[in-house]
Amino acid sequence: MPDAIPIIGGTGALGYGLALRWALAGRAVVLGSRDEKRAAEAAKKLSDAVPDAEIEGMSNTEAAKQVSIVILTLPFRAQSENLTNLKDSLESGQLLVDCTVPLAAAVSGKATRTLGVWQGSAAQQAQEMVPDGVTVGAAFHTVGAPELADRGSILDEDVLICGERKADKAKVAALVEAIPGLRAVNAGPLEMARIVEQLTPLLISINVRYKVHAGIRVTGLPDADHWE
Amino acid sequence: MPDAIPIIGGTGALGYGLALRWALAGRAVVLGSRDEKRAAEAAKKLSDAVPDAEIEGMSNTEAAKQVSIVILTLPFRAQSENLTNLKDSLESGQLLVDCTVPLAAAVSGKATRTLGVWQGSAAQQAQEMVPDGVTVGAAFHTVGAPELADRGSILDEDVLICGERKADKAKVAALVEAIPGLRAVNAGPLEMARIVEQLTPLLISINVRYKVHAGIRVTGLPDADHWE
Repeated sequence: MPDAIPIIGGTGALGYGLALRWALAGRAVVLGSRDEKRAAEAAKKLSDAVPDAEIEGMSNTEAAKQVSIVILTLPFRAQSENLTNLKDSLESGQLLVDCTVPLAAAVSGKATRTLGVWQGSAAQQAQEMVPDGVTVGAAFHTVGAPELADRGSILDEDVLICGERKADKAKVAALVEAIPGLRAVNAGPLEMARIVEQLTPLLISINVRYKVHAGIRVTGLPDADHWE
Repeated sequence: MPDAIPIIGGTGALGYGLALRWALAGRAVVLGSRDEKRAAEAAKKLSDAVPDAEIEGMSNTEAAKQVSIVILTLPFRAQSENLTNLKDSLESGQLLVDCTVPLAAAVSGKATRTLGVWQGSAAQQAQEMVPDGVTVGAAFHTVGAPELADRGSILDEDVLICGERKADKAKVAALVEAIPGLRAVNAGPLEMARIVEQLTPLLISINVRYKVHAGIRVTGLPDADHWE
């Protein structure tokens, strides 16, 4: 499946939610997990949910091989270990889309607080850890896993994308906008992930107060497509 | 003018923009400046722009006295000095609304980057510096000064409010929603200002890319008023 979207951590809530939406949009999806058996189970569950879709489950290391874009949806606690494990799978020319948020929950702190990451953000940590020639983008921090997983839930929000090159971000934007109701916004270079990753705990704080699943919308943007 | 809204730093771009919008909404406004003469000049300019409005200019220290809510719109570089100067003007029971954003521009860095503030955020620095019994809220970080100052510009965005007590935040929300097109969102306790203050450089980054004046909207909130 050369055009399949491989999701590292695809058995987690965010990964599975994105996989469901991409499957519903007619995209082939590969669900990766450290545990091949869990990956196969999640693939079976997703296939049952979207019978027409092309779905495979495999190990993370297999899922990341020989594809142009890899989606990384992991809890912060597991990000570093997984990137180490992926060193032999990733190769120059690939684009890794990091969705990690360094919530303090990773060390039994609050989900409305974050940990300071030495490199500045989880995405910048990923950039430091990937093999030479692999570029990293950051996206999908503010889309709630429960809304993604609930196919009846109508999405209506933005996804902020950080990365060094506009051409890379345009590829991520195409994946974002393959999901109905999501709009891709260019938030700037990868270092802006320091801020964009913080939107998750901000939304969690708002969710607690309003008992909702909030998202982010940037106002004042032109209607025209800025990704061309 | 007991119901007037005093704006410390009211001759700056954000302060003047807010003053214009409140004046247009029929609110009395006091423009504060370190320099009384500049305050008077700004008040004259605002009076010319909104002839029916009640507007006064005075020193920051006078403007902050004997009012229940004080708005602080200062560049980060000037925040600490001004709070020191206000120590004899502020008194227990007052609510200070801090709008400061610790942009790296304060030390000739980029406006898309921020400085680390020891207390966590500019608002928390303000909370540490005000006299006992003065509470601090944080708001108005994401509303662009140029849009506020352009009375023909139609606002359509949210203002995220941080603070310890909902009753205090409700007072700030009333000021926010006195300006047509702005909606107040409860973002949580004052510590969330660490994140909300970062939205300014994020929007600056987006503005540069899209050549717009972007704002923030939180999606998924209920229509009902949550401030009662």
